Amino acid sequence: MPATPAWPPDSTPRLFVETPLAPDVRVTLDGPQAHYLLSVMRVKDGDPVRLFDDASGEWLARAEAVRKRDLILAVTERLREREAVPDLWLCIAPTKKGRIDWTIEKACELGVDRILPVVTRRTVVDRLNLDRLRAHAIEAAEQCGRTALPALAEPVKLAHLLRDWPEGRTLFFADETGGVPATAAMRDHAGPGAILIGPEGGFDAEERAAIRAHPHAVGIALGPRILRAETAAAAAVALWMAAAGDW
Amino acid sequence: MPATPAWPPDSTPRLFVETPLAPDVRVTLDGPQAHYLLSVMRVKDGDPVRLFDDASGEWLARAEAVRKRDLILAVTERLREREAVPDLWLCIAPTKKGRIDWTIEKACELGVDRILPVVTRRTVVDRLNLDRLRAHAIEAAEQCGRTALPALAEPVKLAHLLRDWPEGRTLFFADETGGVPATAAMRDHAGPGAILIGPEGGFDAEERAAIRAHPHAVGIALGPRILRAETAAAAAVALWMAAAGDW
Repeated sequence: MPATPAWPPDSTPRLFVETPLAPDVRVTLDGPQAHYLLSVMRVKDGDPVRLFDDASGEWLARAEAVRKRDLILAVTERLREREAVPDLWLCIAPTKKGRIDWTIEKACELGVDRILPVVTRRTVVDRLNLDRLRAHAIEAAEQCGRTALPALAEPVKLAHLLRDWPEGRTLFFADETGGVPATAAMRDHAGPGAILIGPEGGFDAEERAAIRAHPHAVGIALGPRILRAETAAAAAVALWMAAAGDW
Repeated sequence: MPATPAWPPDSTPRLFVETPLAPDVRVTLDGPQAHYLLSVMRVKDGDPVRLFDDASGEWLARAEAVRKRDLILAVTERLREREAVPDLWLCIAPTKKGRIDWTIEKACELGVDRILPVVTRRTVVDRLNLDRLRAHAIEAAEQCGRTALPALAEPVKLAHLLRDWPEGRTLFFADETGGVPATAAMRDHAGPGAILIGPEGGFDAEERAAIRAHPHAVGIALGPRILRAETAAAAAVALWMAAAGDW
């Protein structure tokens, strides 16, 4: 857990804002964020609020000009620098709404740096609401204490992902037909990593062959049970964080 | 993933039934299970169905006497013995409905042997619908290929859980104030294990002191971010399965 100073208290509301933050910057909030602070958290004039902008770290601010539906937050001091996010990507074939939302939330909490939706032959969801996914990532970042949002890429076809794969980044894929033990593989291939999880129903034979043939691909085993896509994603990310990340 | 024989095909429906299974046993299904087989999976006379009873493994059966709302499944041969489930318990303070359901599903998929709801001072949910949780565990077991259901215990108070803790079972608890790296701790304490996850808001100081003072307790760290209870549970179970389980 982040070492939070005694002040502000852990219960201090924490919000992501698009406004670049610096001392004396004033952020005017209305809409859902104001509703959350005013109606849910009962913020009054002078109360502390923590803000982060995904660029300059986490800042302490004070509520001013609190009204019924809006308020101003006056930034005072920096509480933390922006964190160094472990260099792990999560490449996932979108699954149905509730489950992909959950995957985004967990990937953010567990510390993923970048989320790449991958379109495969058996991908059922072809139209992804990236705004909704981004909202889930922001909410998770606010809740888990991240000062950096996970990047959320535009969906890409598996063939293009493999074709344009960057040098020096290991591609760990959950190999349903049996791979090497995940923790050992992740330790042996430290450095930039990515986890690739197939859709419900798995990759088809041709896709699996293309992944296996990729020079940076390492097939990992995640046990004898058939894991749902989002379960495999959370498990593989946790194993990577423990073996090669910042846990 | 389990090595499934070519027959029956992977797409063969898979159901848990209360009936003890053996060759030539006939299981009459109606209600939701019949609806699933007939209306969702379009099972016809003679089609294969996989059954497990949490006692004798997984069996192949054939549909007979298929009618609009019911059918009979005639057991033919055993496909697999009942598996040996890794000896891991998951002790969780119940969280709100959607999240506890999710935790049960993931614990089952990841291979937990026993789930123990634990009542703590900050536990918000005091009335747990165990039937609903059991239904989620069964559905997850059907989907992930388990031949053994996770046991689901009655809720117990934290103090009683600690008081009656069995000899020789390590109690790994997610220590928000910093513990040892989880994978190393789990390897050092192989054998029967349990993971204890606190409620949203964590254990209170007195509870944490009681857990720390327990002779079998080992505090583990799950990274610098604040994990939701169900995220911490899934991550810790995955780490244990990789370090000391059957992954």
